[in-house]
Amino acid sequence: MTFSVTILGCGSATPSLKHFTSAQIVNVREKLFLVDCGDGTQIQLRGCRLPFGGINHIFISHLHGDHCFGLMGVISSFGLLGRTAPLFVYAPKEFEQIFKAMLDFFCSDFPFEVVFHGFDSTKQELIYDDRSVSVTTIPLKHRVPCAGFLFREKSVEDHIDRKMCDYYHVPQWEYSRIKAGGDFILEDGTVISHERLTKPADKPRSYAYCCDTAYNPQMIEQIKGVDAMYHDCTYSAQDESKANVYYHSTTRQAALIAAQAGVGQLIMGHFSARYPDESLLLEEAKQVFANSVLAKEKMAVNL
Amino acid sequence: MTFSVTILGCGSATPSLKHFTSAQIVNVREKLFLVDCGDGTQIQLRGCRLPFGGINHIFISHLHGDHCFGLMGVISSFGLLGRTAPLFVYAPKEFEQIFKAMLDFFCSDFPFEVVFHGFDSTKQELIYDDRSVSVTTIPLKHRVPCAGFLFREKSVEDHIDRKMCDYYHVPQWEYSRIKAGGDFILEDGTVISHERLTKPADKPRSYAYCCDTAYNPQMIEQIKGVDAMYHDCTYSAQDESKANVYYHSTTRQAALIAAQAGVGQLIMGHFSARYPDESLLLEEAKQVFANSVLAKEKMAVNL
Repeated sequence: MTFSVTILGCGSATPSLKHFTSAQIVNVREKLFLVDCGDGTQIQLRGCRLPFGGINHIFISHLHGDHCFGLMGVISSFGLLGRTAPLFVYAPKEFEQIFKAMLDFFCSDFPFEVVFHGFDSTKQELIYDDRSVSVTTIPLKHRVPCAGFLFREKSVEDHIDRKMCDYYHVPQWEYSRIKAGGDFILEDGTVISHERLTKPADKPRSYAYCCDTAYNPQMIEQIKGVDAMYHDCTYSAQDESKANVYYHSTTRQAALIAAQAGVGQLIMGHFSARYPDESLLLEEAKQVFANSVLAKEKMAVNL
Repeated sequence: MTFSVTILGCGSATPSLKHFTSAQIVNVREKLFLVDCGDGTQIQLRGCRLPFGGINHIFISHLHGDHCFGLMGVISSFGLLGRTAPLFVYAPKEFEQIFKAMLDFFCSDFPFEVVFHGFDSTKQELIYDDRSVSVTTIPLKHRVPCAGFLFREKSVEDHIDRKMCDYYHVPQWEYSRIKAGGDFILEDGTVISHERLTKPADKPRSYAYCCDTAYNPQMIEQIKGVDAMYHDCTYSAQDESKANVYYHSTTRQAALIAAQAGVGQLIMGHFSARYPDESLLLEEAKQVFANSVLAKEKMAVNL
């Protein structure tokens, strides 16, 4: 079952010749979640041939333009493409008033509802929950209210081992009970254990989006052991003073968080345009946390 | 002296795999005017390597998202890049309230002023005027208040013919007077005419941006004889009924306007994504007006 992250933009501040500003699609079992929405996000959605209709939930980390100026374009295109299903937008609560004013002005005649959920970015809050995945905010340290998002896949039931079930003549109507943990009892009273009749389900996966943020060890406890983390890597380790001023992170700081939280993989992003050779940023991170990769537009990471 | 139009986007409604939404740069003697500003315009400005700092005036034809959703991104990037010069934005007056609300929310700490000029799109209005160019609105026929923009270069003085001036020993301090139309009188009283001492200045050029609009013969008088016209060509001639419903034009209607107004060149744009082969659109227009060209992203037309 799919759990992937597709990078639509991983530059910072303003678009460069190399990067779009922040946006990505998290695909959990074919549900598409749009995380941040910088200018031109809908162009990248088209470029990646992602279906606009598959997106029902948009998460905005904070209200700097490079994370939200593409939102009206995306919503407007949904309308033009004939959407009728409601769209849910999650953002710091400070956004509500201006967002509603923009919707009223530009989208009043649209044939679908936009439901706004404002969150308090200083707290961990469960903002989305369904059968397959939950999304919780991660309080971050930035110049304005800002939260990351923790995607946690739900456990699935063990898979039926058809060969073993056939061998013991288990009738199909027993499958649901066995998948849910039950054993099977033969006519002679012999107990065939659940473990013998099933193959264990895959481990549920998890992903943390942590952008934009200064070095923020407070979040380590929350994101411990996630399979992948996308983290603010705006600056080289040599420019830590700049990172401190603007509440961003260096490559080294991101890698330290990755190491301390024991994540599976660090996806580095939100690159400042001042570094023409990003491979140097990668080297810096790898010195602290080996399994680091540079984000890149249109790159997909499968968890 | 430069008078050029660079297409940043010439698609309609939503970005496609082929086109960005509406935006273009009109360069008149190295002053850059941004005309319309669809989503991702700043990405195209970067892609065309156009200097952000050279843009002081932005003209918005109407308030559909595909013509203005890139505006906040452009303004915001101006701020991040350290702009201090005021920026002038011209748009239908209906935009003022929401635009100021967005500026207050997203750009309140910016180190430059944004000056808004709202116009009444039902009237011809001179909205910009300097030594080298004037810009007048062109009332258009669309579903919402919408205006085109007529750029008229100012006449320049005739050029001094250095060889002739040297021959008659005309002192340099007389050049300004002669360029402005004066003759030169030799010591023996012989009059050397202005025409003999100068080369005629280039004819002042003009450009009309007419997008979005239904077939609108009312504007012909105003744009008569312009060197180039960019015109709404959303639909094929075969889809005239659709054009009528949405207040757009067909290729044939645009070409009719071009022919009736006697323009130098028709630049066709605002293409619907429904036509995979735009060369057919070009053929339709050429049947009515031979000097038609298809707009294309990053194309520059020199007038």
